Amino acid sequence: MRYTIFGESHGSAIGVVLEGVPAGLELDMTTMKKDLSRRSPKPDGLSTARREADEVQVLSGLFEGKTTGAPLCLVIQNSDQHSTDYEALRYTPRPSHGDYAGFIASKGCLDYRGGGHFSGRLTAPLAAAGAVAKQLLAQRGIWVAAHISSIYGILDRSWEDVEELRTAAAKPFPVLDDAKGEEMKTAILEARQGQDSVGGSIECVVCGLPAGLGAPDFGRNVEGIFSQHLFAVPAVKAVAFGAGVGFAYMRGTEANDPFEVKDGKVLTKTNWAGGINGGITNGMPVVFETTLRPTPSIGLPQESVDLRTGEEVEIEIAGRHDPCVVHRAVPVIEAAAALAACEVLGI
Amino acid sequence: MRYTIFGESHGSAIGVVLEGVPAGLELDMTTMKKDLSRRSPKPDGLSTARREADEVQVLSGLFEGKTTGAPLCLVIQNSDQHSTDYEALRYTPRPSHGDYAGFIASKGCLDYRGGGHFSGRLTAPLAAAGAVAKQLLAQRGIWVAAHISSIYGILDRSWEDVEELRTAAAKPFPVLDDAKGEEMKTAILEARQGQDSVGGSIECVVCGLPAGLGAPDFGRNVEGIFSQHLFAVPAVKAVAFGAGVGFAYMRGTEANDPFEVKDGKVLTKTNWAGGINGGITNGMPVVFETTLRPTPSIGLPQESVDLRTGEEVEIEIAGRHDPCVVHRAVPVIEAAAALAACEVLGI
Amino acid sequence: MRYTIFGESHGSAIGVVLEGVPAGLELDMTTMKKDLSRRSPKPDGLSTARREADEVQVLSGLFEGKTTGAPLCLVIQNSDQHSTDYEALRYTPRPSHGDYAGFIASKGCLDYRGGGHFSGRLTAPLAAAGAVAKQLLAQRGIWVAAHISSIYGILDRSWEDVEELRTAAAKPFPVLDDAKGEEMKTAILEARQGQDSVGGSIECVVCGLPAGLGAPDFGRNVEGIFSQHLFAVPAVKAVAFGAGVGFAYMRGTEANDPFEVKDGKVLTKTNWAGGINGGITNGMPVVFETTLRPTPSIGLPQESVDLRTGEEVEIEIAGRHDPCVVHRAVPVIEAAAALAACEVLGI
Amino acid sequence: MRYTIFGESHGSAIGVVLEGVPAGLELDMTTMKKDLSRRSPKPDGLSTARREADEVQVLSGLFEGKTTGAPLCLVIQNSDQHSTDYEALRYTPRPSHGDYAGFIASKGCLDYRGGGHFSGRLTAPLAAAGAVAKQLLAQRGIWVAAHISSIYGILDRSWEDVEELRTAAAKPFPVLDDAKGEEMKTAILEARQGQDSVGGSIECVVCGLPAGLGAPDFGRNVEGIFSQHLFAVPAVKAVAFGAGVGFAYMRGTEANDPFEVKDGKVLTKTNWAGGINGGITNGMPVVFETTLRPTPSIGLPQESVDLRTGEEVEIEIAGRHDPCVVHRAVPVIEAAAALAACEVLGI
Repeated sequence: MRYTIFGESHGSAIGVVLEGVPAGLELDMTTMKKDLSRRSPKPDGLSTARREADEVQVLSGLFEGKTTGAPLCLVIQNSDQHSTDYEALRYTPRPSHGDYAGFIASKGCLDYRGGGHFSGRLTAPLAAAGAVAKQLLAQRGIWVAAHISSIYGILDRSWEDVEELRTAAAKPFPVLDDAKGEEMKTAILEARQGQDSVGGSIECVVCGLPAGLGAPDFGRNVEGIFSQHLFAVPAVKAVAFGAGVGFAYMRGTEANDPFEVKDGKVLTKTNWAGGINGGITNGMPVVFETTLRPTPSIGLPQESVDLRTGEEVEIEIAGRHDPCVVHRAVPVIEAAAALAACEVLGI
Repeated sequence: MRYTIFGESHGSAIGVVLEGVPAGLELDMTTMKKDLSRRSPKPDGLSTARREADEVQVLSGLFEGKTTGAPLCLVIQNSDQHSTDYEALRYTPRPSHGDYAGFIASKGCLDYRGGGHFSGRLTAPLAAAGAVAKQLLAQRGIWVAAHISSIYGILDRSWEDVEELRTAAAKPFPVLDDAKGEEMKTAILEARQGQDSVGGSIECVVCGLPAGLGAPDFGRNVEGIFSQHLFAVPAVKAVAFGAGVGFAYMRGTEANDPFEVKDGKVLTKTNWAGGINGGITNGMPVVFETTLRPTPSIGLPQESVDLRTGEEVEIEIAGRHDPCVVHRAVPVIEAAAALAACEVLGI
Repeated sequence: MRYTIFGESHGSAIGVVLEGVPAGLELDMTTMKKDLSRRSPKPDGLSTARREADEVQVLSGLFEGKTTGAPLCLVIQNSDQHSTDYEALRYTPRPSHGDYAGFIASKGCLDYRGGGHFSGRLTAPLAAAGAVAKQLLAQRGIWVAAHISSIYGILDRSWEDVEELRTAAAKPFPVLDDAKGEEMKTAILEARQGQDSVGGSIECVVCGLPAGLGAPDFGRNVEGIFSQHLFAVPAVKAVAFGAGVGFAYMRGTEANDPFEVKDGKVLTKTNWAGGINGGITNGMPVVFETTLRPTPSIGLPQESVDLRTGEEVEIEIAGRHDPCVVHRAVPVIEAAAALAACEVLGI
Repeated sequence: MRYTIFGESHGSAIGVVLEGVPAGLELDMTTMKKDLSRRSPKPDGLSTARREADEVQVLSGLFEGKTTGAPLCLVIQNSDQHSTDYEALRYTPRPSHGDYAGFIASKGCLDYRGGGHFSGRLTAPLAAAGAVAKQLLAQRGIWVAAHISSIYGILDRSWEDVEELRTAAAKPFPVLDDAKGEEMKTAILEARQGQDSVGGSIECVVCGLPAGLGAPDFGRNVEGIFSQHLFAVPAVKAVAFGAGVGFAYMRGTEANDPFEVKDGKVLTKTNWAGGINGGITNGMPVVFETTLRPTPSIGLPQESVDLRTGEEVEIEIAGRHDPCVVHRAVPVIEAAAALAACEVLGI
């Protein structure tokens, strides 16, 4: 299964084509809608004021409710666009956005309106594709769940069993510890008030992958496959498996996962490895954390350059922005993980 | 250019085939030798006692000293093998090694001797492939340099200009601050004395990549491409670009890189983004950090399971092991980065 | 550049997503329209009576008339559908159609209406994608032209210079020798009258590809790349380069192309090799012939099997069919060749 | 499974790396040896006088006789080389060889000795890789068999049942009709006497592929997959499935394959489609024919050009050449078909 996301923030529509979807899958549009709704901005001050219905239209690959194996094309119409907000920024790239890099890459032919193809809005078709992947995984007893592990340095607590993780993932503000969640919200609102933004991190778990998938080699390595999917999510700047960056502070005696046998199954007592050894799944849950940068769109004046004249200029970004994308990104990280898991499984 | 590494720790030879190497490259075997020597274990107590000449033989793709464009096959003979050390561990996987996952993946047909195809020894052909990639990059004014950024929580200082970084990378123990390097060595030797091991991290910089390479999309995203190459290096468990996991603690005002114009060039005053925005290079150095886990091979008794009987057993790992692989991995990370940079450039 | 075609004959829309289109191409929708019109059925009795506007809508990847480098999604709405014609054939596959193979591949979830995703109608987005590819080639002085080389054993004459070939390609019935063209039309009309169909062949030429592209190896071989693109065109059953199947009847002295020097350029006096030696372009025009099978949709009664009961049954295909697809396939073969040429060029 | 062939005719060794070989395959070196012996030149005047042992050495991926799933590297040493034969031709490309195209592609850095990487000798590792593929197919009840269908216009008769085809394939000169085989041999010897060469064709059958594999789409189309593998065999210039180029002379009533039910299985009474409809297997044997050009190496004087001076020159090719490669290519076509079948099966 291979996916291609297309569209621009202020174009007529955005969408995704999934090639190689197994035939015979009864596509559950309700769970897809749910995932899209999880990532859509709410009128709670924590997100952009842009509102989109995110109605998914199936153009192809589905017949009488079931996938046919032919490419599945899912399209979402755009509507609530304020393109004029961006006119002023056409030649003055916003710091740390894709504007400048995209301008060079596109030889100046960038659709600059609302981030164009770089927009976080493109995560809607990714979530839709992920919903298809999740259904294929569910058929095999595999599920994916994520929660906010931190925002602006405020950490959620660790999960103890997988059920509480799934419960947390389904919350409107997906944290295990709601008190911590309130602190995070306050941090977001404060950032917003200061015309600023905040970053954070998401922890994600894939449960049910059998042992023995993958290989140590480039191209077949499970960590490599997951990371390539995850870095395609806008704002993700780090991917860490198991103990992650913590390994740099550990000894082998601390980091090694002792084996045990439970109900005839070979397990490990701890899971610092995050379910992967030597690039291959070991049967334990695949666990990883992604770090998301603070939204580069902030209201304060910033230093830019006029790409026509080469002169340094000060800009101010108008428009409706997210002071934080971490909470909205939770289903998107799950989607990328689900698509990665499908690739690992050879689906 | 695509590479395939083959071989096992205790097989007759290890090697790599590089497909798509541009023709006409005068292959510099001296710099290749140098990179291989940087990763080879030294008799300093910081590494395994295994000694290999790591003499690279070119089987194909080279004629009169120049690449022909046909697949380049590089082979290194194995010699210093103590296969009997591993006999006892055949059916009792070493915790946090690839043994168990590999046993399942190979349906029990694993070459268990010395880690087989999972062995760190396979990084020798990777370093050789990286040396080819580095030469191709050098022709375009691009270079790669890495240093140990931490071992067991002892941090090297930050680099200030690229020249001191290149100098550090070339050191026998590649750190910027040699005093910190001595502390790290002490930590390694202490771990070794305790039959234990330690983890750490490597920071790597790719200088000279032009702006505008890559795309935000899956499969063409620069961070995605780098990460897939990096996770194929054994022991790497986290990859973080620019400010990396630090982004989770930052505000947009701190994390955004203001633009400036210098000598007619568009630059950014800071480089928290690590040279990549929206999955595309922005012309600043590509900077990332990888975390490497402590070597799972430790001398202390550990809990395993007998895969024949399904019973829990205690094992002790004999043989010659690295108490830390971080210092030896520096040229390997550079190699993976160089191969990734070639992919990004469409070489 | 990679393309994915989606859609079904009787779905809401068909289309294509092109990934990796170079930025800055001023997309010429007029020549695209022309290619689509060349493949569309005309009311001349030589083709199906189905009529479609084939209006191409650009969903993404185009801004102010130029490609942005982001995925280009082209969509064509379906309209003139008679789905009920196919109801009766749902479980009784039409001989030599994709029906049976598709039924098995889709686990019974086939969109059987009008051939579904197997329909010749899907060549419309292919022609559209080819029009993009042709424009990219034109920028490099490369063009593609094809003509009907035979229908039901009636052969067009050989081309002598490239100009007459381009003129022929642009004709409503693309042959060099119009008298032969009339014979072919008669053969088609006769087949139609007999509720039958006829096959034929198309010769295609790609002019302007520089020498030195490709490699002898699997995956990079120019003949291999072209053939994979060409066999994705429905009805194509054979692909032959240069002298093609004629080589089996030749001696080396006849088949070898002697070198000559003209205006300082190395050319060959003959071009039996079809512009490719050892899997690499030699600078001469790339010439190949594809054979297209007679349309399997014929009006006469045919032997099928009821897939529900496993019993042999006789079927009659209602609906509107092409008694021959060769003349309509000319721009489609050109499209596949143009996409292949782009791949060979690394576009 | 993906393969990369490396080596040059006059280098130290040639070989192949197979990635993704399923673990647990007991590698049968005897049948591999047999296939290599089928393609090796015999002292019968029908082939080159070059003699090589073609001893396959397994460098990696095999442990205790079984594949481990790690890359399998097979190497064959070169020995019987007369490199000086080629010195004179270094800058005067042999007509219709890869010399000129290869010279340009390699920017002048071509290993010109004995065809270098373009040499027919590289089909030895291809045959070895094919032997691995054949074993994997055999486990699934699938086999591949080919025979010479024509040499210089002399046609072998058609096969009637699969058993006689397998018998023919195993013959030293693999034809169904030995009398025709003698005629072919005479044609080869006559060509040789005239310092000339002859072309021909090979028909190949893959039996046992289940229905429902593949897709109509580019990249997943069974005919496209097979053709890409087949065109990577040197000298192949045409690939035709089922009735092949004959379709151009047929009506639908002749070309359509009527269904029948036998022993509860859906079959077709004829197999003009060659086992593939709409790019998907239909359960009937996959049948195709490849055309091989006459060997371009002929002893007669030929017109070339001196690439240093740009002047036209006459050359004579010394050395030991094959007056025909068709008979030696039979196991090589089988190998390519077996590798294609594995790709189609997702092995």
